[in-house]
Amino acid sequence: MTVTAPAGFKAAGLAAGIKASGAKDMAVVVNDAAAQLAAAAAVFTANRFAAAPVLFSREAMALAEGGYLVPRAVVLNSGGANACTGAAGYEDAQRTAAVAAKELGLRPEEVLICSTGLIGERLPMDKILAGTEAGVAALANTEAAGRAAAEAIMTTDTVPKTAVIQDPDGRYTIGGMAKGAGMLAPELATMLVVITTDALIDPGTAQGALAEACRLSFDRADSDGCMSTNDTVILMASGASGNQPGPAEFTAHLTALATDLAKQLIADAEGAHHEIEVTVRGALTQGGALAVARAIARSNLFKTAIAGQDPNWGRILSAAGTVPPAIAPFEAARVGVSINGVTVCRGGEVGEPRDLVDLSGRQTNVMVDLNAGAAEATIWTNDLTHEYVSINADYSS
Amino acid sequence: MTVTAPAGFKAAGLAAGIKASGAKDMAVVVNDAAAQLAAAAAVFTANRFAAAPVLFSREAMALAEGGYLVPRAVVLNSGGANACTGAAGYEDAQRTAAVAAKELGLRPEEVLICSTGLIGERLPMDKILAGTEAGVAALANTEAAGRAAAEAIMTTDTVPKTAVIQDPDGRYTIGGMAKGAGMLAPELATMLVVITTDALIDPGTAQGALAEACRLSFDRADSDGCMSTNDTVILMASGASGNQPGPAEFTAHLTALATDLAKQLIADAEGAHHEIEVTVRGALTQGGALAVARAIARSNLFKTAIAGQDPNWGRILSAAGTVPPAIAPFEAARVGVSINGVTVCRGGEVGEPRDLVDLSGRQTNVMVDLNAGAAEATIWTNDLTHEYVSINADYSS
Repeated sequence: MTVTAPAGFKAAGLAAGIKASGAKDMAVVVNDAAAQLAAAAAVFTANRFAAAPVLFSREAMALAEGGYLVPRAVVLNSGGANACTGAAGYEDAQRTAAVAAKELGLRPEEVLICSTGLIGERLPMDKILAGTEAGVAALANTEAAGRAAAEAIMTTDTVPKTAVIQDPDGRYTIGGMAKGAGMLAPELATMLVVITTDALIDPGTAQGALAEACRLSFDRADSDGCMSTNDTVILMASGASGNQPGPAEFTAHLTALATDLAKQLIADAEGAHHEIEVTVRGALTQGGALAVARAIARSNLFKTAIAGQDPNWGRILSAAGTVPPAIAPFEAARVGVSINGVTVCRGGEVGEPRDLVDLSGRQTNVMVDLNAGAAEATIWTNDLTHEYVSINADYSS
Repeated sequence: MTVTAPAGFKAAGLAAGIKASGAKDMAVVVNDAAAQLAAAAAVFTANRFAAAPVLFSREAMALAEGGYLVPRAVVLNSGGANACTGAAGYEDAQRTAAVAAKELGLRPEEVLICSTGLIGERLPMDKILAGTEAGVAALANTEAAGRAAAEAIMTTDTVPKTAVIQDPDGRYTIGGMAKGAGMLAPELATMLVVITTDALIDPGTAQGALAEACRLSFDRADSDGCMSTNDTVILMASGASGNQPGPAEFTAHLTALATDLAKQLIADAEGAHHEIEVTVRGALTQGGALAVARAIARSNLFKTAIAGQDPNWGRILSAAGTVPPAIAPFEAARVGVSINGVTVCRGGEVGEPRDLVDLSGRQTNVMVDLNAGAAEATIWTNDLTHEYVSINADYSS
């Protein structure tokens, strides 16, 4: 099960006719909790061309933080991003929320909106509004309904992404669904994620836990270095389990679930043949470790080398060498590199023979040791393949 | 003609057996001027894993700036970068300079060294040293010799890059050769460039002119966002024309020549089908314009869209939207985008129909108007194609 695994949630996914293929393209997720018990939290893209649904949902969250009603429903569509659509696009998001709210007996500001697809086109509002009504009518707390919702938000995803985690004592459950395959980058990633839980938590705890979980999961997935206009991660809590976890414990479980979903995104990244874990250790600071890992994960030359099963560690160091010393202090002559366990570079120069490295499997591990401190960080990325070019050259998304 | 076009220079290019293909792989360029008349200047990669030849040449230039002899020869090889090769690699560069110096009657510190090729392997020194001797023996001031040198520094280049410019009054000549096809990025670019001139200039003027010319040319060519360990641009002046240009005039001509070479690099970038000029205007500062242009030029989603002849302007804005407001202040709702003259986005939303854009030709122009000021900047880049992936996945470089 997915977002319907925790008690107190219903979901639906259906084909509203937005996608020409006839595939599912709209989803609704609803928190059945009473307003006083419900909590919601959200993290949005940092892109300055934030899409209309992001602007609308951000406003709803701001109202909730100001003491207004907590959002208890999310309407999502694929097949169109409703980004760069101006005031008319914003009104489209408002109208969708209004229709959902009417059907659900909520206020429009209690509904969050997410969209994904091509930027710079208006949504087909007749289909969106009819789909919203049909989605509300189809809401169910079944596994099938949760799975249909996860399928309805797919774009170039080849599989739906879902995850469920339970507190070891069975006191509460967290469920989630995610979509995203390209445009995966730090600070979120053409990525829509809805997470539900029946834990009893207050909105402040929910927001703090979600921000920390995103920082350690989705923000460390970097598929192609591109940041989307529509990224949204939403957490809704129903309190239906009656169990109130401590913030640290809840954050840990939420982070585990978010990491699971983030790795699923990278595993299904557009055209990828290798899932690559770039770990930088021996850094003076975690920020420095992250900066070096990101520079490597974003190097097209590194990513094509892995696609070609070529353990070309020079491309790893040349990418690491672009990070300014002020951000990550290290000495070039002390840096080591291991690829899948073979230390191909030691002390900044040739180590074990590169021919010993086996890159035939999907899982790829790159470990860079800066020998400059004790901090460590990992970025998850993937290789750059012919299929990535095909998908993104031939498909308008 | 190329580096041999200005008076007072000889060159040679030959196959020393470094490349398995048997293609030319070593070049020598020599300034015949007396030490008092000669000037030299150089710009090197900012990469922290600078290759041994860069470390060696940097040291020679530092000595010259300190009043020691001005470098008057360059020995270049393709087929191996001599990067990440430690102290032994540095000694290899020293030995090459020593052999060239002995043959030329110079001090080793008067010889600069450039290498390009695979990182993390020692050079075959027997071939390098024999090739150096043979190169010096073959030196000539002919067009054929200049062309052979330009051919000898090619790696994945499909054509040699050369340019010549003359002062309109015929008082002096500037000639240049360049190599580079991938790893082209700001702050230089798997790029070796040797420029010669018979203008009479002092080393300070030469260095100032070269730095400014690089800033406006090679630093604005961004093929794949990757920065090499070996980038070097060298200018040598012989004074043989007897004409002493003013610094501003000389800088302008040098910039024109460097821009010509930079555009040749982008035109031959690995696998490219489109040469893309990304111009950002209406910025508050030139730095802001450059930051936005670079963010667009580095977006794989933008580059694959152009490869697919898809005028997907949402990918242009989503890349522009990643630049922090502090670096480039602008309002999303005021930004316009034109592709090949069609204003597909106006005021941050849909403009003319994207179907009007014709991307069938090689030359592609993207104009982003931030409507936030009067500054403007251009970055030259290229599309991301299947051939780029093939070249870099299948070829160890």
